[in-house]
Amino acid sequence: MADKITPREENFSQWYIDIVLNAQLADYAPVKGCMVIRPRGYALWEAVQSELNRMFKETGHSNAYFPMLIPDSFLRKEAEHVEGFSPELAVVTHAGGEELEEPYVLRPTSETIIWSTYKKWIQSYRDLPLLINQWANVIRWEKRTRLFLRTTEFLWQEGHTAHETAREAEEETLRMLNVYKTFVEDFLAIPLLTGPKSQSEKFAGAVDTYSIEALLQDKKALQAGTSHFLGQNFAKAFDVKYQTREKTLEYVWASSWGVSTRLIGALIMTHSDNKGLVLPPKVAPQEVVIVPIFKTADKEKVLEYCDGLAKELKASFRVVTDADDKQSPGWRFAEWEMRGVPVRVEVGPRDLENRKAVLVRRDTGEKKTVDRGAVAGEIKTLLEEIQKNLFARALKFREENTVFVEKYEDFLPLFEGEKAPGFVEAFWCGDPECEAEVKADTKATVRCLPFGRQENVSGRCFHCGKEAHHFAVFAKSY
Amino acid sequence: MADKITPREENFSQWYIDIVLNAQLADYAPVKGCMVIRPRGYALWEAVQSELNRMFKETGHSNAYFPMLIPDSFLRKEAEHVEGFSPELAVVTHAGGEELEEPYVLRPTSETIIWSTYKKWIQSYRDLPLLINQWANVIRWEKRTRLFLRTTEFLWQEGHTAHETAREAEEETLRMLNVYKTFVEDFLAIPLLTGPKSQSEKFAGAVDTYSIEALLQDKKALQAGTSHFLGQNFAKAFDVKYQTREKTLEYVWASSWGVSTRLIGALIMTHSDNKGLVLPPKVAPQEVVIVPIFKTADKEKVLEYCDGLAKELKASFRVVTDADDKQSPGWRFAEWEMRGVPVRVEVGPRDLENRKAVLVRRDTGEKKTVDRGAVAGEIKTLLEEIQKNLFARALKFREENTVFVEKYEDFLPLFEGEKAPGFVEAFWCGDPECEAEVKADTKATVRCLPFGRQENVSGRCFHCGKEAHHFAVFAKSY
Repeated sequence: MADKITPREENFSQWYIDIVLNAQLADYAPVKGCMVIRPRGYALWEAVQSELNRMFKETGHSNAYFPMLIPDSFLRKEAEHVEGFSPELAVVTHAGGEELEEPYVLRPTSETIIWSTYKKWIQSYRDLPLLINQWANVIRWEKRTRLFLRTTEFLWQEGHTAHETAREAEEETLRMLNVYKTFVEDFLAIPLLTGPKSQSEKFAGAVDTYSIEALLQDKKALQAGTSHFLGQNFAKAFDVKYQTREKTLEYVWASSWGVSTRLIGALIMTHSDNKGLVLPPKVAPQEVVIVPIFKTADKEKVLEYCDGLAKELKASFRVVTDADDKQSPGWRFAEWEMRGVPVRVEVGPRDLENRKAVLVRRDTGEKKTVDRGAVAGEIKTLLEEIQKNLFARALKFREENTVFVEKYEDFLPLFEGEKAPGFVEAFWCGDPECEAEVKADTKATVRCLPFGRQENVSGRCFHCGKEAHHFAVFAKSY
Repeated sequence: MADKITPREENFSQWYIDIVLNAQLADYAPVKGCMVIRPRGYALWEAVQSELNRMFKETGHSNAYFPMLIPDSFLRKEAEHVEGFSPELAVVTHAGGEELEEPYVLRPTSETIIWSTYKKWIQSYRDLPLLINQWANVIRWEKRTRLFLRTTEFLWQEGHTAHETAREAEEETLRMLNVYKTFVEDFLAIPLLTGPKSQSEKFAGAVDTYSIEALLQDKKALQAGTSHFLGQNFAKAFDVKYQTREKTLEYVWASSWGVSTRLIGALIMTHSDNKGLVLPPKVAPQEVVIVPIFKTADKEKVLEYCDGLAKELKASFRVVTDADDKQSPGWRFAEWEMRGVPVRVEVGPRDLENRKAVLVRRDTGEKKTVDRGAVAGEIKTLLEEIQKNLFARALKFREENTVFVEKYEDFLPLFEGEKAPGFVEAFWCGDPECEAEVKADTKATVRCLPFGRQENVSGRCFHCGKEAHHFAVFAKSY
C-alpha cells in the first residue's frame, strides 16, 4: 500500500489525498464537495469529541441539539451575518410533496436558530450565563473543496453562550479559545498561534473573532478553530433582553466558538510523512501494533509469545496484533506505518529464544531491542516521547518557516507565484484597505494578530507606511 | 413547577407535554415539526449513545459518517424504498445561489448513499462482513408530530452491514435486535415484545423487519426500534457484488437497524407520574439529589454536613446538591421529583444532631431514615431496587393490559372510538387484506408476531376465519 503515496516534495496535494485514501480515513462521496468519513477517520473524530466534551463539561457547558433547518427569514435578521453566509447556503424549497411557503436553509452555523430559542429561555440575570454546546453537521456550499479541510458538509461543535456583561462574554470567548489551544497542542501536537483576526477576516456577525492558526508542511496556514465575541448583535437581532440585577432591561451579551473535522486535516498535514499517516499517541485509535514474524515451523510458538505480550500490553495501551501470514512481514510493517500507529513491536523466533522484542518508533523509524520484561515500560516512555517529539518537530518547522519583514519589497518575492513561505511577520497599520492591497498582490492574508507580540509595535506599516498598530502574521492559507 | 403538570388521567397527551417542557427535556422549535433538545433531554440521549456505542463496538461495529444529502436518483434505484419514503422527503433544489441540476433529498435513512459507497469498498469475501454504524440526524416530513416520539428531524443511529450469506445477514439482523432489547430492558427499564413485523408494516426495501415494541401508560404501543434483513435488495439496486470463496460473483447480503431519540419519549411515557419525570438510575444524569434543610442559624452546620456527604457519595454516584435557600424545601423536593432524580437525600438540623439522613425514593415516594455511615450503602441498594422496580412495574402494567381474544366480536369493542386496550393477542392468518380490514375498522395494527409465541398457533384467524398461521399482537400505536 505504502508505495502508492506520492512523495510530499513532488506534489503536496496528491501526497495528502493519497494518505487520506490509502489510510482509509475518508473517501469521496457521490455528492458534490462531500466526503464519507471512514471508520479510521471517524475514530480520530471520536477522540477529538471525547476529549473536548470533557473539557467543555469541566468549564460548565452542557450539550443540546437545535434543528438543522433554519427559516430563511431568521438569517436575514442580522445584516452582516446574512451577507456573509448567503453565497454558501443550501435551500430546501420542497417537502412532503409540496412547495414550502417559506424556504428553509440548511444551517451553515446556528446563531440564528439558537438565539431565536434563547429568547424563550432568558428572562432574568438568573438565567445567565447560559453555556450550551452542540455537536452537529453543517452545510456550506463551497466552490473548491478538499477532504477534511473544506467540504460542503462537515461535522463540528458549536458553542453558543449568553452572558450578563460584555466582559463576561469576552472572557468566555478567550476561555474557549484557550481550551482549543490546550487541546490542539496537547493532544493533536500541533503548535498554534492565537489572537484576534483582522476586522475583514472576522466571522459575519461578530464584534471580534479570535482564531487558532497552524502552519502545515506545505507552509500554508490553516485556521483550525475560531471563537467569537458577538457583542449584542444577535441579542438585538432576536430581541433577547434580560432583567438585570438592577431591575433594568438589557440586551444579552454573547459568544460562539467552533472546531470541526477540519482538525483531522490539520493533524494529517502536520505530522505525516512519505510512508503515510503519523499519529500522536494520545489520539491514535491504536497506540501499538504487534507484528509476529514466523515460518510455519515456529508459527505456534511465536503467536503464543505475542498473545502473552498483547494481553499484558492491553492493560495499559490500545493494542492490535497483525498475524496475517498471507502478507510478508515487510508488507505488514509498511501497512501499519501508513496507518500511523505510533509504536510497532516486532517479534521473531530469535526474539522468542532470547526473550526479547524489537520496538520501532513511527515518528523517527528508530529501532530498539528490549527485554521481554521491559517492553511495557519502554512503550510507555516511547509513547510519551513520540507525543512530545511530534509537537517539538512541528514547532521547529514553524520557527524555521517564520520570518519578520520590515519592507514590502522584501515581502513581495516571498509570495511570488505559487510560493508559500510560511508565516511572515510584520508591523501593520490595521487598515482593511491596506490588507486588501496586500492580498491582491500576493494572496497572503492576515492570519491573526498574535497574543504576546503586540507590546513592542513601533514605526511604520510594512506596506502602506502609515503608523503601525499591530504585529501581524501573514501567510497563504487554506 | 410540579403543579403545572396536567394529571395523566385527565389528559395523557397534555401530561406528556407538560413533563417534557417543565422538566426542560425539549422545547418546540420555530421550524415545522421540529424540536430543540435541551441539555437535560440531551443528557439522556448521551446516556443512550454511550451505552449503545459500547455494545456496538463489542459486537464488532465501527462508527463512520456518510453525507446527509442524497442525489434524488439514488432513492429511485430501489422501487419499494422510494415508494415508501417519497411522501416524507425534504428536497434541496438551490445551493450556492444557483438552482441545482439534480436536486438532493435530505436523508430519511441512509441505505442508498451507503450502498452506493459500499460498491467501492467491497470486492471480495475478504472485505466482508462490513459492520458500520452511523450517528446522525435524519429528516422525515411528518404531518402529525409529537415531541421526541415523532419529529420532522430526529437523531438516531443507523447500522448498515454487508455479509457473504443470507444466513449471516439474518443472524446480524437478530443479533442487533437483541442488543436493542438488552439495552432498552436493562437500562431504560422498558419491557419489550420482539418479533417480525407483518409484511405490510415492514421497512420499505426490506425482506423482513423485526421490531422492539413497548406498551406506554396510555395503553398505546410504540415501535421503539427496528432491525431489517434487506436480502440482496440494495446490493442489486447499487450493483454490489463480491467474489466468493469459490471465485464466483454474488450480490452481497445486508442488514440495517436503528433506534432514535424516540427512545426518550418511550422512557418518559413508560415511567413518569403526575409529579413529573421518573428516571431509571442507570441512565439518570443525576442519581442522587441532596437537599439541605436549614434556617439561618443552622445553615452553616447543615451545609458542612451535606458537603461531607456529597463528597463521599460522589465517589460512587452522580450527585447534585440543591442548597438554594431562595426556595422552600418543599418547592425543591417537588422540583427534583419533577426532574426524575431517583433518590433524594434530605438533611435537616435534627438529622445532623442524630448523624442521620432521610432517603426518599422517586419511584414509590417511600421514606427511610438511615445512619450517616449507612447512607452510601443504602443508596446503592435503593438504586438497584428502583431500576428493578421500574421494569417490574412496567411489565406488570403490560401484563394487566394484554388480553387474548378468539373472536372479532370480542376484539371490536376493545378499540371502539378512542379506546386503547393495550396489547390484544390473537391467532391470525397473516393476510395483508385481513390486516387492512382490521385497521380500517379499529385503527389497530399488528405490532409484531412475537418470538416464543408462535409454537401453538392453531385454528382459525380471529377476523377472517381462514387458517391461522401466526400469534399476532394488535394495538393502537403512535
